[in-house]
Amino acid sequence: MTSFNIFLFDGFETLDAFGPAEVIGGMPDEYRLCCFSLNGGIVKSTQQIAVDTLPLTEINTSGILLIPGGIGTRTLVYDKNLIGQLGILAEKAPYVLTVCTGSALLARTALLDGRKATSNKRAFEWVCSNGAAVNWIKKARWVKDGKYYSSSGISAGIDMTLGFISDIHGEKTAWDIANAMEYVWNSDMYNDPFALFY
Amino acid sequence: MTSFNIFLFDGFETLDAFGPAEVIGGMPDEYRLCCFSLNGGIVKSTQQIAVDTLPLTEINTSGILLIPGGIGTRTLVYDKNLIGQLGILAEKAPYVLTVCTGSALLARTALLDGRKATSNKRAFEWVCSNGAAVNWIKKARWVKDGKYYSSSGISAGIDMTLGFISDIHGEKTAWDIANAMEYVWNSDMYNDPFALFY
Repeated sequence: MTSFNIFLFDGFETLDAFGPAEVIGGMPDEYRLCCFSLNGGIVKSTQQIAVDTLPLTEINTSGILLIPGGIGTRTLVYDKNLIGQLGILAEKAPYVLTVCTGSALLARTALLDGRKATSNKRAFEWVCSNGAAVNWIKKARWVKDGKYYSSSGISAGIDMTLGFISDIHGEKTAWDIANAMEYVWNSDMYNDPFALFY
Repeated sequence: MTSFNIFLFDGFETLDAFGPAEVIGGMPDEYRLCCFSLNGGIVKSTQQIAVDTLPLTEINTSGILLIPGGIGTRTLVYDKNLIGQLGILAEKAPYVLTVCTGSALLARTALLDGRKATSNKRAFEWVCSNGAAVNWIKKARWVKDGKYYSSSGISAGIDMTLGFISDIHGEKTAWDIANAMEYVWNSDMYNDPFALFY
């Protein structure tokens, strides 16, 4: 059983975290979902969903790491302690997935330097400013570079996580989960209907 | 400011609740999101997301009511106290929205009797068995009958909630929220790609 650790913080975007959680929850025998935050306890999403979390010290550091975005990232990119801890965790993780502006947090760890990544289209310039050495891809639903997956805004995290499942467990498994969710999966990572919006 | 009350219980389906929450969260000046459960405190989704909730006694009963589905509904349909409380709340609510098997809970209150409703395609027969007098529609992404909205499985709740926003606040507002979510809205309530699956 692999741990799938979702990093939460005040002002995370609800669907960034829980779209991927729904996908990963489709394989309960493979993955154990765990929500954590730097200090543990209740954290609130921008949409005021209050989630109980474990402190970072209690999570399985060999787990997969998901970093959602949200308005909270705007200040967290300057939090050197948090970025340092996130960097240690991301280095240990077999895979790291970011959604939306979550890629700005990961970019601050420098682990994306020289790698391809994407992000929310509405906040793209701000995200880029957090990682000058990252090869930011503007037109992509999601991007994969080595063990790092990053998606565009909010609902794109669902498509990326299905893409991740497809890479690891095969395309049929991904489609089965999408169908059980009654979700029309955009399975082409470079089909990005929102790239031209902003 | 209108309250938008999300009813949670152990074994709710994560995206059933938080897809609509993301949509409603797109209008923070109009709606105040509130998660509640029968007795309050932490409830856990099937995917193990632990959410802090207010008890039913503390919620604004003139708010809109959202009832998600999930494996927990399989036993809750027999919980007469819960169904009774839910019925009182649903009668007072200006609008009631159900996602997936949440419509089985609402059907048990008898408030859907003689009305059109839909549900998850995989659990359709079981849902129908909870409301013999309901006009169950099998091929629909979502259905509206008076103040009652019901959607198909899991991700269909996002489409329905955008449809609700469109009905109340106009189609442009709904598309603006969908675009901000980078979500390809299936805006036709009778376009149900999953009706033939099961």
